[in-house]
Amino acid sequence: MKADAPLESQRIRADIRAGRLTGTSRGLAHGFVQCNLAIMPKAYAFYFMLYCQRNQRACPVLEVCDAGDPVPRKLAPHADLRTDCARYSVFVDGESQADRTDISDLWRDDLVSFLIGSGITFDDAFERAGVPTDKDRWVLRTSQPTEPAGPFKGNLIVTMRWLTAEQAITATQVSARFPFNHGAPIHIGDPAVIGADLKNPMFGGPVPGLPRDKVPLFWACGVTPQSAAQAARLPLFIVHAAAHSFITDMRAESLMTP
Amino acid sequence: MKADAPLESQRIRADIRAGRLTGTSRGLAHGFVQCNLAIMPKAYAFYFMLYCQRNQRACPVLEVCDAGDPVPRKLAPHADLRTDCARYSVFVDGESQADRTDISDLWRDDLVSFLIGSGITFDDAFERAGVPTDKDRWVLRTSQPTEPAGPFKGNLIVTMRWLTAEQAITATQVSARFPFNHGAPIHIGDPAVIGADLKNPMFGGPVPGLPRDKVPLFWACGVTPQSAAQAARLPLFIVHAAAHSFITDMRAESLMTP
Repeated sequence: MKADAPLESQRIRADIRAGRLTGTSRGLAHGFVQCNLAIMPKAYAFYFMLYCQRNQRACPVLEVCDAGDPVPRKLAPHADLRTDCARYSVFVDGESQADRTDISDLWRDDLVSFLIGSGITFDDAFERAGVPTDKDRWVLRTSQPTEPAGPFKGNLIVTMRWLTAEQAITATQVSARFPFNHGAPIHIGDPAVIGADLKNPMFGGPVPGLPRDKVPLFWACGVTPQSAAQAARLPLFIVHAAAHSFITDMRAESLMTP
Repeated sequence: MKADAPLESQRIRADIRAGRLTGTSRGLAHGFVQCNLAIMPKAYAFYFMLYCQRNQRACPVLEVCDAGDPVPRKLAPHADLRTDCARYSVFVDGESQADRTDISDLWRDDLVSFLIGSGITFDDAFERAGVPTDKDRWVLRTSQPTEPAGPFKGNLIVTMRWLTAEQAITATQVSARFPFNHGAPIHIGDPAVIGADLKNPMFGGPVPGLPRDKVPLFWACGVTPQSAAQAARLPLFIVHAAAHSFITDMRAESLMTP
């Protein structure tokens, strides 16, 4: 490989930008950090950032762009956040609009973009440690309130994974090594303790009965700040569409502690 | 000890508030996190928080209070930031004013308080691991630029410690377990590599010649954001006076990763 060959993340973003790749970001650019994207007017940026700081396990902020700047200069200096997600969801006064593949025409000089860590960052490390990531995984609402900040509030949203006892112990250790990406689980065992809503999963399809050899584990989830921002009914709020995350040039391992 | 007996941190803050304790916070409330305090008008809070996010190693934000709220509800819910540091430094338009023991009369509804982690948080862990913390320690300017945000910019400020090779290895491992408090060193060895200014130390007194059995280690220092905020010449900026940190009720060990 030549020194100046593009990274896999850069090639994939170029394909997304050109419309050659339109599907989800799952499984793409193996080993590169994928981020939740949240874009809003600067007038709301302080309290959103404060909300993230107060709920750091759910909302690990990896980069915040200057107002009006669509380039994440640290995580992907050649990217453009207006075109490089395959799909965007847009909310106006809290009302969902049609999804888009490009938000250039909505761009304004006062828009601030937040890149927030995602649990899929440690999927790669899980797989290498023998913890499966391709099934038995849901995003669920809970009854646990987050710490509010300005207009942002709401209950914690979690990722639940079902693992064997042995995998659960490994997964706890491995995820603890990603303190800037949700870290260790926030709960293990009975979903009722945190009021996890198994009847109405946000993602992952219907939740069947728990097999006797599996343990439920719960991690704080990056959907939490998105949900808080939607509920705040901002005049304009843009996020990546579910499972169409922004792919950065940062290696997942660079976010790992010893 | 009764369940409702005050914590040592609470007793010490009460003494400070009552004027019975007027000296530095060094060595007080062993094992409790001490914080750098930075207070400014809300108009500057977004960019200051962004500066901290972009320079996280130097500026680990542990809590941000709502505008006008002098109570750090997470780190010390019974404290008052206007009275509970033994000494405050005040800057008006960047000009240093006389130090104060109480800032109640300067308080305004638009003031936002930032509590920023301090390197002394891991002193306790260092001591228990056999790494001395009571000498050979300086705060130095470097030639390394930080990432700017809005009006905040400047070079990185570091804490330099001189340790034996064995202690240096231990100190690197122990501090890496505090990713939310500066973490591992940013440099080991030749001070010239980071342009550390040994001739004009900010704290710690004159730097003598390096003994042959010692290695210099450099950690990102919480004085960095303070210095950036002073240079920005805000209309009002208040910090704890050097070595008169704010003592929280949080145990240092609770900020440690495995």
